[in-house]
Amino acid sequence: MAPGVLERLDAGEVVIGDGGFVFALEKRGYVKAGPWTPEAAAEHPEAVRQLHREFLRAGSNVMQTFTFYASDDKLENRGNTLTFTGQQINEAACDLAREVASEGDALVAGGVSQTPSYLSCKSEDEVKKIFKKQLDVFIKKNVDFLIAEYFEHVEEAEWAIQVLKATGKPVAATLCIGPEGDMHGVTPGECAVRLVKAGADIVGVNCHFDPMTCVKTVSMMKSGVEKAGLKAHYMTQPLAYHTPDCSCQGFIDLPEFPFALEPRILTRWEMQHYAREAYKAGIRYIGGCCGFAPYHIRAVAEELATERGILPEASQKHGVWGSGLEMHTKPWVRARARRDYWERLKPASGRPLCPSMSTPDGWGVTRGHAELMQQKEATTAEQLRQKKLSVHKNSRSIQ
Amino acid sequence: MAPGVLERLDAGEVVIGDGGFVFALEKRGYVKAGPWTPEAAAEHPEAVRQLHREFLRAGSNVMQTFTFYASDDKLENRGNTLTFTGQQINEAACDLAREVASEGDALVAGGVSQTPSYLSCKSEDEVKKIFKKQLDVFIKKNVDFLIAEYFEHVEEAEWAIQVLKATGKPVAATLCIGPEGDMHGVTPGECAVRLVKAGADIVGVNCHFDPMTCVKTVSMMKSGVEKAGLKAHYMTQPLAYHTPDCSCQGFIDLPEFPFALEPRILTRWEMQHYAREAYKAGIRYIGGCCGFAPYHIRAVAEELATERGILPEASQKHGVWGSGLEMHTKPWVRARARRDYWERLKPASGRPLCPSMSTPDGWGVTRGHAELMQQKEATTAEQLRQKKLSVHKNSRSIQ
Amino acid sequence: MAPGVLERLDAGEVVIGDGGFVFALEKRGYVKAGPWTPEAAAEHPEAVRQLHREFLRAGSNVMQTFTFYASDDKLENRGNTLTFTGQQINEAACDLAREVASEGDALVAGGVSQTPSYLSCKSEDEVKKIFKKQLDVFIKKNVDFLIAEYFEHVEEAEWAIQVLKATGKPVAATLCIGPEGDMHGVTPGECAVRLVKAGADIVGVNCHFDPMTCVKTVSMMKSGVEKAGLKAHYMTQPLAYHTPDCSCQGFIDLPEFPFALEPRILTRWEMQHYAREAYKAGIRYIGGCCGFAPYHIRAVAEELATERGILPEASQKHGVWGSGLEMHTKPWVRARARRDYWERLKPASGRPLCPSMSTPDGWGVTRGHAELMQQKEATTAEQLRQKKLSVHKNSRSIQ
Amino acid sequence: MAPGVLERLDAGEVVIGDGGFVFALEKRGYVKAGPWTPEAAAEHPEAVRQLHREFLRAGSNVMQTFTFYASDDKLENRGNTLTFTGQQINEAACDLAREVASEGDALVAGGVSQTPSYLSCKSEDEVKKIFKKQLDVFIKKNVDFLIAEYFEHVEEAEWAIQVLKATGKPVAATLCIGPEGDMHGVTPGECAVRLVKAGADIVGVNCHFDPMTCVKTVSMMKSGVEKAGLKAHYMTQPLAYHTPDCSCQGFIDLPEFPFALEPRILTRWEMQHYAREAYKAGIRYIGGCCGFAPYHIRAVAEELATERGILPEASQKHGVWGSGLEMHTKPWVRARARRDYWERLKPASGRPLCPSMSTPDGWGVTRGHAELMQQKEATTAEQLRQKKLSVHKNSRSIQ
Repeated sequence: MAPGVLERLDAGEVVIGDGGFVFALEKRGYVKAGPWTPEAAAEHPEAVRQLHREFLRAGSNVMQTFTFYASDDKLENRGNTLTFTGQQINEAACDLAREVASEGDALVAGGVSQTPSYLSCKSEDEVKKIFKKQLDVFIKKNVDFLIAEYFEHVEEAEWAIQVLKATGKPVAATLCIGPEGDMHGVTPGECAVRLVKAGADIVGVNCHFDPMTCVKTVSMMKSGVEKAGLKAHYMTQPLAYHTPDCSCQGFIDLPEFPFALEPRILTRWEMQHYAREAYKAGIRYIGGCCGFAPYHIRAVAEELATERGILPEASQKHGVWGSGLEMHTKPWVRARARRDYWERLKPASGRPLCPSMSTPDGWGVTRGHAELMQQKEATTAEQLRQKKLSVHKNSRSIQ
Repeated sequence: MAPGVLERLDAGEVVIGDGGFVFALEKRGYVKAGPWTPEAAAEHPEAVRQLHREFLRAGSNVMQTFTFYASDDKLENRGNTLTFTGQQINEAACDLAREVASEGDALVAGGVSQTPSYLSCKSEDEVKKIFKKQLDVFIKKNVDFLIAEYFEHVEEAEWAIQVLKATGKPVAATLCIGPEGDMHGVTPGECAVRLVKAGADIVGVNCHFDPMTCVKTVSMMKSGVEKAGLKAHYMTQPLAYHTPDCSCQGFIDLPEFPFALEPRILTRWEMQHYAREAYKAGIRYIGGCCGFAPYHIRAVAEELATERGILPEASQKHGVWGSGLEMHTKPWVRARARRDYWERLKPASGRPLCPSMSTPDGWGVTRGHAELMQQKEATTAEQLRQKKLSVHKNSRSIQ
Repeated sequence: MAPGVLERLDAGEVVIGDGGFVFALEKRGYVKAGPWTPEAAAEHPEAVRQLHREFLRAGSNVMQTFTFYASDDKLENRGNTLTFTGQQINEAACDLAREVASEGDALVAGGVSQTPSYLSCKSEDEVKKIFKKQLDVFIKKNVDFLIAEYFEHVEEAEWAIQVLKATGKPVAATLCIGPEGDMHGVTPGECAVRLVKAGADIVGVNCHFDPMTCVKTVSMMKSGVEKAGLKAHYMTQPLAYHTPDCSCQGFIDLPEFPFALEPRILTRWEMQHYAREAYKAGIRYIGGCCGFAPYHIRAVAEELATERGILPEASQKHGVWGSGLEMHTKPWVRARARRDYWERLKPASGRPLCPSMSTPDGWGVTRGHAELMQQKEATTAEQLRQKKLSVHKNSRSIQ
Repeated sequence: MAPGVLERLDAGEVVIGDGGFVFALEKRGYVKAGPWTPEAAAEHPEAVRQLHREFLRAGSNVMQTFTFYASDDKLENRGNTLTFTGQQINEAACDLAREVASEGDALVAGGVSQTPSYLSCKSEDEVKKIFKKQLDVFIKKNVDFLIAEYFEHVEEAEWAIQVLKATGKPVAATLCIGPEGDMHGVTPGECAVRLVKAGADIVGVNCHFDPMTCVKTVSMMKSGVEKAGLKAHYMTQPLAYHTPDCSCQGFIDLPEFPFALEPRILTRWEMQHYAREAYKAGIRYIGGCCGFAPYHIRAVAEELATERGILPEASQKHGVWGSGLEMHTKPWVRARARRDYWERLKPASGRPLCPSMSTPDGWGVTRGHAELMQQKEATTAEQLRQKKLSVHKNSRSIQ
């Protein structure tokens, strides 16, 4: 039997995560932006299976069940109507992850994420019940370990960890925060200490910020944990988008979210840089989130090929550092088949009418605000009109 | 039986093409950049089938066989060694295209493209034999029509058309040229006239330039054909990359080709603009090439939903003009659920250290140049060294 | 006595012009943007004298009289009220130019430019009378030669040349056009032929476009003149602003004109590049127009120091290629005291929220259009309102 | 007699400073970049007088003597040889400032700035003697008040204040620091407290950072002073260059310093924004430093015209918010004669091959480092070679 995630990390191995499924499957036509729910696991299993397989071939050691936002309170939010129950979706997702994991030596991780119920100020008990419901499926399907991910508030993550920890399985926990800390202003270092104390074996961040920002945030977490005399493993699953202009809530505040982020996508070379810096910072669970395509994960695996002693299967279709270009028809393209060329290149945007940074929206609302309250019904026309009126407009700006 | 491509075009219908397979499958881990050959059709049929299916769901009316560069002289070029024969690859590709086409009402198109043999100055007979060999498979597998695509020299395209035309099937022909014309300096208008006279029913461009540049080039072709008193249908299958800085050889001259083009990827809204402008220009066969993902084709189909009287299947997972965001958790994201927001947005690159345009390489070599000669052997170290020495460096530049 | 402009050019010498006075004096507080009239020559002679002197010290061989737009029909346009007559301004300007020219060995050139009367479709006679009136002052003050500059229509320039030529003095003529030709669509080559045939000894362009575009345009003019078997000297006095995004009417169409052009200002090193390219193109009268500050002219003089056999006086306060930085306090700034550093630098804008190009206004109105008619009265509120309504707005744009 | 600077500030008036002379006169041909010394006061008084006059007309209430770096230890640094003594330069500068101040109701301020002696670790006594020597001239010439400006280390500024304070004249003190504090890491708040305790009546920052960064830094100083229960007036004289990419040492670390800063120059509208924000922050002495041209100061005066009850003389040549464009020839330019047009415009750089930010040099050397030691002799070739070797090169970068 394959060694577990903690055995691998304890042995000093690198564990490569996968990339974000909702964004990838949205572009392939199986997930709807807005609700972002994972019904495709039950509805179009062939599409989900194929994406798992591509990440496996790219070097992922973990198949995360495609169960993001698959809690009943989220599936029924704001007029989203589905033909599958949460239980059906969670079960199908577990089966797919296990099926593809078995094609290699990957582990299966069951994941829970933040709930609309927490934002709507439901009680600790009510929120924990939601996690418990997803967890029952994970246990029945015997996943290898658990991930509590995409939490904006460390408090809700603690609740999730407490529920997950009770199963006895290893627990990883990642917040979607940056160097400024969580939505209540708790610093990354303090957040990490609380996650570890709640029972997480692996702590870090995922989503919301670009790779280098996430490496920085996890470094702050590591520092906090070490100062507190605690021990943990570290993990980072960032965006594949550059976000130098983000404020504390990350990329959802950017005007380009979610339909015009294309110019921000990292190249494979930028991903290799990320993998190297994450490794140098002592992070050993290195994966991705929204925007990560299979070739991004392959880049992580290629950068760390020496440390891991292996190249991923998909590298049969990729010349390391562009060496495949030696077979190109045009001589000037063949001349690009070298590492220093790609490392030094500053890629142009091809968009001379566009800026290089944006001003993020900054509504400053968080847990408990009326605008964030859960509702089963669709957003009404009146609610939308109100929103347009209140859209923040800088009447006067300066660069 | 489904109406053929010419019946659809003659009836004034819009025919939506698919996107480029080599770039999409390179990112998924099944095609090697450099040789760019389509052995995945035989080697990993599940990956090719899934991509076909995503384009079908996105609205494509045509499944192009994944046979780009699948001529024997190309498959064996510069040290590329494969475990499948050209015949096996071409046959597998036909079967996959037909299988998925039958899941909807799509047509199957068999495609040939430019050959290393032409660049190496082989004779008309030799070049035509290469096309004939691929064609034999297409006829055996009974594709619905034929496409001669990705030709830099109109002369080679004429030869291809002559071979294809002999089958009696409808023939489409697209050059990979821009407004400056082909590599021998023949203008788009004159190119188009020659393609029509050689027997093409549908003419246009594919690859090498961005959507708006392609619409402009096809408009020049249409003008030329009409001035010559001829008739044809028009077709465009552009890149999904912005290329305002390209010279006559298109995006392969850009320093970012092929591994750092990410910032140039068009958004779905830019694709809707492309679809509209192509339609206004009288182009009715509207598809894509390198960089096009399924969601880009869906955007074309959504823009032309009224004209076509139908939304594609994948639009069940996409709110037109971002309306799905009404179901988003955050109120400021819900406020983006409207057309004018996305139409006016100028997306930031997130890369303040990068420029917005590049200076393309410009070696100015074309057919017959020693550097372009075909060779079965891998590029040697000495050949690569020579190339590096001759890489064009502007010793002094000005913006 | 100093040799005249034609003797210098016939001898193969480089003649360095000066920079634009209206833009420089607007920033110094003596010219009003909008009317752009040169009353400062009479009103604040010390400011005009000082600017002349700075250009002389920077290497200018010509002091152009500060008489731009100093025709009576322009001085009285649209509510502009002045306390000096056109005659007073023209006389004062001649005196100042001569005074400073005599501090070195510079020549004095009297200049006329396009008239509102032409745009308002006044007759050839009426327009010529206006030129004649300015010319009377120039002859009385005995300027060394004459310049007809800033003409958008070659026809009006021909009229001006005919008037100036009658004096027997050398005549230079520059249009404010780019590679697309004049506002009536006459190509640069044909324009140049007509200017030479009308009597101009020196032909070229000034204003409206950036230095490299002007070099290109004058090259086209030179080509046209040579093909016609004629002879002339060539001249360029471009903007000091980058204008890659201009259409045929040049920088006044840019949204940034005239109050937000700062990011486009050329560096001294870009000016040296311009001087070299102009020289290589066979242009020997090399100066500047709007945006040129004295240090820009000094850069031209330094680039051509070998050819001219002399460094300008102001170079006593400038280390060639930055060598003065060897005396800087900080070691990393001292490390910048070298040519290759400055030649290769791509200067950042410091404006991440701004694009690198704009979409120019394109009203497409020209001579004879109601909007361009001359009126003595101020623009009325109603006229302004109409304008705002008709401001061109692209309802949908793509990069 | 005109009221003194403290009487004006105590009465709540806005005092408008002038702009930086060394950068302005370098471009006009009278100051050498590198040594940056002010010998022009004695050598070319007409040029210095004219610049004073332009600032006076633009609205400046203070004529600063052009005595920047006019200490003997600086005048003789690194091979700089001058034909005037420090005393001659300081006296001439005082006379010019007084002459022009008397043309209006402006005050004369005598200025001292940081010394190479401090960086070379000379003793407090030695450094103070240098200040005393300049001060003797200021007292003899009876300037109205004193400014200690451009100090990177608060300690040296304290020494300067102590010397100046002994004269009984009002003393203003500005550091060239940003939000990160001085070169020894003292925070802005703590710096301000020390400046006030040393005797400064007015405290703030000048040079090194852009206007909005300076407003932020002075706000931090004000906060510190208020928390300490002290009282002071506040002052800001920033760069006219955007510096979003600066680290703690400001714009001299930018690769563009000092010869390629053009794209960063603020527009007049950005200056009005600065003036408004400075005013809102409680800063009442508002001026400029390097890069400020007379029209930038005019913009400050126009923005605060209501508060000051007066428009500057130069506004006779400037339509507030672009209203002068109503007299422009072209209708689309007349349509720009309005405030919202200019306030909202994001000016393009016109440089598509350039980035929007740079990576600053960061040598991290400061007071006492061998590289910063004063030497009378020119930098030797060997010293320069060493520097080039040690120029920091990021071997691998990511955006």
